Order: sequence, then structure tokens, then C-alpha cells
Amino acid sequence: MIVAILTDFGQQSWYVPAIKGVLLTICPDARIVDLSLQVPRQDVLAGAFILGFSSVYYPRGTVFLCIVDPSVGTDRNLIIMESDERHYFVAPDNGLLTFVAKREGIRKIVKITNRKYMLREISRTFHGRDILAPAAAYLTRGEPLEKFGPKVKKIVRLDIEEPRVENGTVRGKIIFVDDFGNMITNIGEAILKKADIKSGTEISVMFTPFSEMMLFCQTYDDVKADKPLGLIGSTGFFEISVNHGDAAKRYHAYPGSDVIIAVKV
Amino acid sequence: MIVAILTDFGQQSWYVPAIKGVLLTICPDARIVDLSLQVPRQDVLAGAFILGFSSVYYPRGTVFLCIVDPSVGTDRNLIIMESDERHYFVAPDNGLLTFVAKREGIRKIVKITNRKYMLREISRTFHGRDILAPAAAYLTRGEPLEKFGPKVKKIVRLDIEEPRVENGTVRGKIIFVDDFGNMITNIGEAILKKADIKSGTEISVMFTPFSEMMLFCQTYDDVKADKPLGLIGSTGFFEISVNHGDAAKRYHAYPGSDVIIAVKV
Amino acid sequence: MIVAILTDFGQQSWYVPAIKGVLLTICPDARIVDLSLQVPRQDVLAGAFILGFSSVYYPRGTVFLCIVDPSVGTDRNLIIMESDERHYFVAPDNGLLTFVAKREGIRKIVKITNRKYMLREISRTFHGRDILAPAAAYLTRGEPLEKFGPKVKKIVRLDIEEPRVENGTVRGKIIFVDDFGNMITNIGEAILKKADIKSGTEISVMFTPFSEMMLFCQTYDDVKADKPLGLIGSTGFFEISVNHGDAAKRYHAYPGSDVIIAVKV
Repeated sequence: MIVAILTDFGQQSWYVPAIKGVLLTICPDARIVDLSLQVPRQDVLAGAFILGFSSVYYPRGTVFLCIVDPSVGTDRNLIIMESDERHYFVAPDNGLLTFVAKREGIRKIVKITNRKYMLREISRTFHGRDILAPAAAYLTRGEPLEKFGPKVKKIVRLDIEEPRVENGTVRGKIIFVDDFGNMITNIGEAILKKADIKSGTEISVMFTPFSEMMLFCQTYDDVKADKPLGLIGSTGFFEISVNHGDAAKRYHAYPGSDVIIAVKV
Repeated sequence: MIVAILTDFGQQSWYVPAIKGVLLTICPDARIVDLSLQVPRQDVLAGAFILGFSSVYYPRGTVFLCIVDPSVGTDRNLIIMESDERHYFVAPDNGLLTFVAKREGIRKIVKITNRKYMLREISRTFHGRDILAPAAAYLTRGEPLEKFGPKVKKIVRLDIEEPRVENGTVRGKIIFVDDFGNMITNIGEAILKKADIKSGTEISVMFTPFSEMMLFCQTYDDVKADKPLGLIGSTGFFEISVNHGDAAKRYHAYPGSDVIIAVKV
Repeated sequence: MIVAILTDFGQQSWYVPAIKGVLLTICPDARIVDLSLQVPRQDVLAGAFILGFSSVYYPRGTVFLCIVDPSVGTDRNLIIMESDERHYFVAPDNGLLTFVAKREGIRKIVKITNRKYMLREISRTFHGRDILAPAAAYLTRGEPLEKFGPKVKKIVRLDIEEPRVENGTVRGKIIFVDDFGNMITNIGEAILKKADIKSGTEISVMFTPFSEMMLFCQTYDDVKADKPLGLIGSTGFFEISVNHGDAAKRYHAYPGSDVIIAVKV
């Protein structure tokens, strides 16, 4: 009976209030949980990341209403994806489910076409209220997936280059910057091992135009305040931080930036 | 049993936490829904707008606790308004219910005077905690409206000039700027038709000191990224946007600004 | 069954979503209430203040999950404190419970050591998800305090100098700045009386490098818009405001600043 909301609509507008009202009118018992209402706006990658690293903690049957939809009104599909964890994701098919699909596996996908599960009037600019929220609410009420529309074979995925080892360095991307300014990459522990880059050593991290020496360590306080560091974060991926500071601000980094990690020579 | 909260108290203070505690102590079964805790501060117009365009989606019996109260401690009234939709609005009588009253109709209004429904000690600066939250909680518990105080005939309404047709142009106001920077006006579809301004045509939009040519279209992607456009938004009103951009930032616009729309000549 | 969350994790990351998922998986009936997810980051004093002035309004049995933990991964303790009000605070032992302990009294404290109540894998940087959230969830499910670990005698408290009377002035500290820019001090009504500083008089307030004359009054509208004022706020403490303005911005003040109040001579 949980409906978890992820969106970039923000908290100073009438969009989220309207969506919650639609949910509660169609499914009065819905237990609404705010995942994030503050996804950086129109940033599908950030939304995909937040969703991809948190959904796995939710109970079976949770419905995720995911609205980061910069192309509302164009012909992108609106879908419901059921994962192997029996989570249900109601979302535009624009890459927002990239990480979730990778992490949880895909069991079934349908395209939402059944007018019975939409509001009577459908605007061109607010499908979150008119189509996605009603779908999430009916799903929470127990309507079976098949009723919402025809099956779809696959989802749109964001094209994110996989990290690789090259000349003893590991090359990857920053894929997320959190509220503390920590920069999270797509570089996992395994690939660092392959390049013989180990925790406890000094490393060189290049993210154009910066190149910084820092300790590859285990927790923020392993270096002095205001010093940069690298560690395997709670996502399981390598991240760059400044102890008691804001790495993203210092290095003007943003999702999509290249990162190259090398052992200090 | 739903209590929906709208306020400008923000999320970095102890005000909202205190209010939620009062609600849950008086009415343990209350289901609290955050509408917006981030109304631009002391901005009654913005609060009125958010409320006015979202309340209609909520189930009958929903109690709305509305606290944007720049004149707390003065002699403005605190009221409960029941709408024709059987929604209950607990609020200072300062214009915050202007749009809701217009959209939902007024069934009954009472002024909150009964000390029995207030906290024992009443501060001079936090009536949200001491009077409004308890009233909302007792109302949610089922106390009848009449018990809270004497009937009142009418509410204070914000004085917003109606849009009008003049020399083939339509003149109105920006009344809200959303989190994406879309500027929403009080100009509806009907009045644009009256001035023969139709979707699909190039229009000229003046909002001092800017004058911009743009397409009057149907969805954001009808123009290229970074281009301005006008459309009838999901509120039913004309709004000015920049595709994948932030119109309010580009044009330094704010609620209250004049807007003049004309067909391109 | 209420779990109230206070944290500085913010609303643009996957941390809060993950924590809520852990809570709901372990305790499906938990009713999650957001106290504040936007405590200024790594600001233990601000978190302590928000908690200390709002927890008292919650029903008995409420579990508070409090995560402002700049030293995650070091050897600070994680604890559960039961107050005399029968509230349960799950938190790092870093001063975050300073004001709550003072206001509600301490009934029992345990250090969380029982692995049975933690997630199977424990990261070094996200104990909020791995240890604190599970503890809060099991506690909400009814597990007795004693099972979580050994008793502890006392908690870490923030060292905040008490206000004092000196040469007819009252000297204290700004301890919190709210979303409106009001600056709240640790100076109560009693100590002002002791120095013969009374409401209704002009006072001089020094907070280096500013020295301002203002009215010590009862409500914001007692002075003209944009004028500074002092009053006993809804916390019971002296605060400095600007009517319809932002005092903190005008005076560049911040928590920890010294404040000296004197009668105008």
C-alpha cells in the first residue's frame, strides 16, 4: 500500500500537492512516502541514480511514482515496470529506470494506454497528474499490471560509458553529486583492484581541469578537515569527497565529468 | 482523516516539527500530507495559488492546515472555511483562501475563538502551533465546525485585477512562478479567444521591460530548446516558458508583473 | 508507531529514500513523519535546537531517528536515549541530544551494539541506513531498549556558555537562525528581568560588529516594516528580528555569535 514519489517538481509549486490529492482520491488507503521531490530539475540521470540506489530497500509491492519528464507532451511512452523484487515503477520511458532495471532486474513492462485509468481530462503538460498518478493509485489498489496496456519488450536506457582500465589507470564518470558535495563515480571496487589501486594508498585523481593527490581511504575522518579523499562509498562505488567540506563546489564538478584514477608515482 | 499542510515555515526550523507533533498528539490517527512547506516566505499570493490549484484533487473531508501569516499577532482573524467540496481550510483570514473560495465555493465560515480548542499557553508569534494546528486536529477528530466559534459572513480576498481585452490585446498579470521558472498568468483560454489569439500562431508578449515574439503552442517541445513559448498550462491559464530553460530567470519576472499579449503583426 | 526523522542528508540524494525503505521493510506499520531533512549540513547545534524545541509536542512512544553525524566512521557511539516523556531518540552521541535531554530529562541510555538489529552489511560511511534506521525500526516494532546494547551513564553535550548578567547588560549567544532569518538566542525572559530589561522599552543590542537600537516588544508588527526588533519568541527565548525582513541576512549573524543586550541610556 506504499506509494513512493520521486520527482523534480520541487516543493514550491502546486504540482506535488495535486499529485498527492489524485493518489488519495483514487486510493484512500495509499501510504505516501516522499522519496525526493527535489531531483535537480529535468535531470533524468540524477533521478535514475537516486531511485536506483534506494528502491532495493523497500518492501515487496511498493509502487514507485517517478516523474522526471522533460519531454512531457512528446511521443515518449509512459510505462509500468515490474522488477524481480516485485517493485512497481510508474514512469516516463526516458531512461529514468536505467539503474533500477540493472539492479533489480525486469519482470514485466507495460505501456500505459488504458483511458480507464487516467483522469477524464488530459492536459498536454502535466501527465504526472493526469496519467502517472492515477496509474500508480489504481496499481496500489490492486489492479493487475496487464490491464493498463500492452506489454513492451524493453525500456529506454541512459547511455553511460562503462569504466575501463587503461595504461594502469581507471577511467570512469562522475554520475551523481549528493547534498554534501560528494562526487560519486561509476567506478566500482572490483575494477580498482584490477588496476591494482588499493585502499590505504595515495592516489592521483584527474577530473579536468583538476588533478589532485589524495588518500584512498575508508572513512571521511581518515584525512584532516578540508582535505580531499577518495573512498568506496555506501553505494559500493568510488567517490571523491572533502572532509567536512564540499568537493563538488571546490572542483566545479558535475555529473557526466570524466574521472581518471591512478596510483601516485 | 487527512490533514494537508501548506506553509512558508520552511524545512530548516523547528516550526513544522512542532506543528506536526501538536497534530499527532491531539489526533493520533491523523494522516499528515505535506502540500508545501516551502511557500515563498510571507507570500500570501503564492500560498493562495498553490492551494487554489491543488485542493480540488483531494477527497471530501480533507482538512487543510494553511499557515502563511505575515501578520501573526495583529488582529487578523483565524478562521475555518468549509467549501462546497466539503474541504475544510484552517487559516488566517488574510487572502490565503482567495482562489480556493473562487474555485470550490464557500459553504460555511467560522472564526476560531473557542479556547477549548487551543493550546493552554498561547504565544504571540506562533499561532500556527498554538491555535491553527489544534483546530485542524480537533476538526479531523470530528468536532463540528460550529463549536469552534461564531459564524462569519465572508473572507478577505486578495485584490487581483481581472484580465481584459483592450485594442486587440489581452492584458493580465503574472500570478505565480513555479519551480521550473514557468510564469503562470491569470489569463484563461476564453479571453484569448475573445481577442482572436489562437494556438498555433506567433504572438508578441510584453512584460515590461521585455517584449518577446514566441509561438503560442501546445507543449514545451513545440519549440527548440532554450526558446520562449506560450501555452495554456495544466492550470487552464496562459503561461510563459522557455523550453528546457527558466523563463522567470531570463525575464526577471515575478508575481504581480503586468503581461500584455498580442497577435504578431 | 510514529518514527520522526531529523537529518542533514537533504532532499536531493538517495540517503533519505534508502533510510525510509529500511524503516518500512523492518517495520511495515511505521508511520514516518519528516521533522526536518534539511538541517544545515553537519551542523549538530542546529539539529539539536530543532529537535529540542519540537520533540515535546509529540505523543508518548514516538521514536525519533536523528542523523546529523559529521564524524561517521570514527569511534563515536550510536545510542538510544529514552526521555522522561517516554520519547525514544536514536542518534549518534555527539551532542545532538543536548537540548532534548535538558528539556525532557533522561530516563535511560543504551549504546547500540547488538548486531541482530543492524543491516547485515555495514558500510563505513552510512550508519544512518545500516545501524540507526534499523534500530529505530525494531524499537518501533516494540523491541525493548535493553536488547540493543549495554547501558550508558551519560550523553555527550554541546558546550554552550550560559547567559549571564554583567554591568547591567545581559550576555548570551545566538543559537539558531530560522528560515525567516530570525536570530534566536539562549537568553530567557527571567534573566532579562534580573537585569531590569523590560518589554516595551528601547534596548541596545550588540552583536559584533553591529550595535542596534530596537524596541523590545511583543509581536513583529509592533514596529514598522523593515525595522529591527527584539521579542521573547515562541521558544521562550529572546530573538532578534526584522519586521517583514531577514535579520540574519542584514546582520550577517550566525549561531555561536555573542549577543549583548542593554537598556538604552
